[in-house]
Amino acid sequence: MATTGQFITCKAAVAWEANKPLVIEDVQVAPPQAGEVRIKILFTALCHTDAYTWSGKDPEGLFPCILGHEAAGIVESVGEGVTEVQPGDHVIPCYQAECKECKFCRSGKTNLCGKVRAATGVGVMMSDRKSRFSINGTPIYHFMGTSTFSQYTVVHDVSVAKIDPVAPLEKVCLLGCGVPTGLGAVWNTAKVESGSIVAVFGLGTVGLAVAEGAKAAGASRIIGIDIDSKKFDVAKNFGVTEFVNPKDHEKPIQQVLVDLTDGGVDYSFECIGNVSVMRAALECCHKGWGTSVIVGVAASGQEISTRPFQLVTGRVWKGTAFGGFKSRSQVPWLVEKYMKKEIKVDEYITHNLTLGEINEAFDLMHEGGCLRCVLATHV
Amino acid sequence: MATTGQFITCKAAVAWEANKPLVIEDVQVAPPQAGEVRIKILFTALCHTDAYTWSGKDPEGLFPCILGHEAAGIVESVGEGVTEVQPGDHVIPCYQAECKECKFCRSGKTNLCGKVRAATGVGVMMSDRKSRFSINGTPIYHFMGTSTFSQYTVVHDVSVAKIDPVAPLEKVCLLGCGVPTGLGAVWNTAKVESGSIVAVFGLGTVGLAVAEGAKAAGASRIIGIDIDSKKFDVAKNFGVTEFVNPKDHEKPIQQVLVDLTDGGVDYSFECIGNVSVMRAALECCHKGWGTSVIVGVAASGQEISTRPFQLVTGRVWKGTAFGGFKSRSQVPWLVEKYMKKEIKVDEYITHNLTLGEINEAFDLMHEGGCLRCVLATHV
Repeated sequence: MATTGQFITCKAAVAWEANKPLVIEDVQVAPPQAGEVRIKILFTALCHTDAYTWSGKDPEGLFPCILGHEAAGIVESVGEGVTEVQPGDHVIPCYQAECKECKFCRSGKTNLCGKVRAATGVGVMMSDRKSRFSINGTPIYHFMGTSTFSQYTVVHDVSVAKIDPVAPLEKVCLLGCGVPTGLGAVWNTAKVESGSIVAVFGLGTVGLAVAEGAKAAGASRIIGIDIDSKKFDVAKNFGVTEFVNPKDHEKPIQQVLVDLTDGGVDYSFECIGNVSVMRAALECCHKGWGTSVIVGVAASGQEISTRPFQLVTGRVWKGTAFGGFKSRSQVPWLVEKYMKKEIKVDEYITHNLTLGEINEAFDLMHEGGCLRCVLATHV
Repeated sequence: MATTGQFITCKAAVAWEANKPLVIEDVQVAPPQAGEVRIKILFTALCHTDAYTWSGKDPEGLFPCILGHEAAGIVESVGEGVTEVQPGDHVIPCYQAECKECKFCRSGKTNLCGKVRAATGVGVMMSDRKSRFSINGTPIYHFMGTSTFSQYTVVHDVSVAKIDPVAPLEKVCLLGCGVPTGLGAVWNTAKVESGSIVAVFGLGTVGLAVAEGAKAAGASRIIGIDIDSKKFDVAKNFGVTEFVNPKDHEKPIQQVLVDLTDGGVDYSFECIGNVSVMRAALECCHKGWGTSVIVGVAASGQEISTRPFQLVTGRVWKGTAFGGFKSRSQVPWLVEKYMKKEIKVDEYITHNLTLGEINEAFDLMHEGGCLRCVLATHV
């Protein structure tokens, strides 16, 4: 392409400082270095992790930066040594890398590749510990190794999933984070069996994806818990069979659920990021085998607690990141499942806006009726 | 037998109140009712759980009571409907029952039979919610459904494991609690694989049994952690390959272990009952897959805590009771393994005393050199 090897100037939403509106700026995006891929981002969604870092509560948050990590696009150019994708490939950037070579990737036990973590954790690229984004010479930090709130971004080659070019990018961008996180929590982390009783705390996108995954796994009851009763109607479409609003009960929610299920649920999922709810999610599990999976991300410094007796009597406490999916290997498989109509994606998209409307999109995120808002970046 | 259907008057060590020396008393032991078994206890060992309840710190502790739950004996008589054991059978009383019929037993997922729990938890027998022990008409509570600090005891039939009559009761009494708890934590709860790196916190009987189990499972490194460095010499015999004394380090012990193992251990076991150590045991686990098993029993009201990030990044927190062994089914199998010299038992017995010396035995328990003290009850 004409832009290969050149700086590209394009629009990006820049977070100059915590908690201040994002600003659409002309950003210079450097060409990809060895092992890097420059992607033309076509669609990006917003996720609560973006909002968390933007809020300033994330002690690892660095400013100025370009947020965003749930997106889809087309490879514009690749750096030296990149063999698995080439210009024109349709891709989903993956905040969780997969190098297939490190101790983690080779373990067969986890999706948490460690290869580029040290660089992406501090907003730079691995080769030279620098950013590929700048505005008039001022570097702008990367975020989660993806920075998709930009018309172009540069990512490590181990963080790019090549997908079926027929898949609609304006939909499958959601397979970069929230939907796989929920499905994978059920399928990979908890391994829910047919006939199980499942509790889902928090009926946002991730919670609904948990419900969808549990339904696919054959769960007999899927109990949705949320303080906003209006969410139940939508949740039914994703597999939730019963709804409990903690505000309707005087007893602690874990006790309500234990009573409702003759001793507790087989599996529970915390999809909010609230440490008190994490405790309730563990304690509503059945003695002897109930397993609770933490899916939500709590604010920094917060801690979970329980009596050790809860574990000694057979409950298991786990967590998941990106649903345990190996990103480069399995995101394309999720795209295929979507194309075969085996998993939902469209149903999570409640709003469509443009990159220029990103601040409105964040406002929407905090409203009950919004699941995912997809931004078109090149309009 | 001549005693069938009669009250038996025998010696028992009675805990009249918390934290006061046990008193050897003449106790009347009622005949077993339907579904009950009266056992002549020949040998009983002491365990920290006895000491915990005796101390008064256990809010569920009831006085006066007869403590003891790690023992072996011979069936003296059985109540109506008891079919699986008969007078003369050699048995190990099991504080964890196995009815093979309840929701728990049928689940295939846990050893925590619930059948008699409501009665044993409050020191009585299930059929009439009364005790079978009395002194001049004053009832004396049962403890853990076993009460083995007595020459005769009455237990529920679901709490009796029939064993090979050739097995030496003065040894296999240990298979009633501590040794199976440690072995099972490794084999059943953690399912340690060959080549794993294992950390064992606390090198008492249970911790050493964990080491023994890990060695049998093929662990490549078994790191023992204890604040008493003298324990290392003995621990080597049970499979411990490295020793770490937290007192020798300024850094938190979890960091010491992470540094020592290139990122953390594959499996850790807390065998003390200290909630701070439970946290360290979780946090010394490897990101992505490390699993920590709580084996020790913490004092009532204490809580475990950690950052949820520890779980979200792939660590798993579990617990175990009686090592996950199904008592009636598997204690006889453990006895067989001992007879075939596949597991150690003799090596855990450091002291032999008599029931009359039980207060001395408790004093010994708190000395570093004592693992298990076995009391002969009929001398």
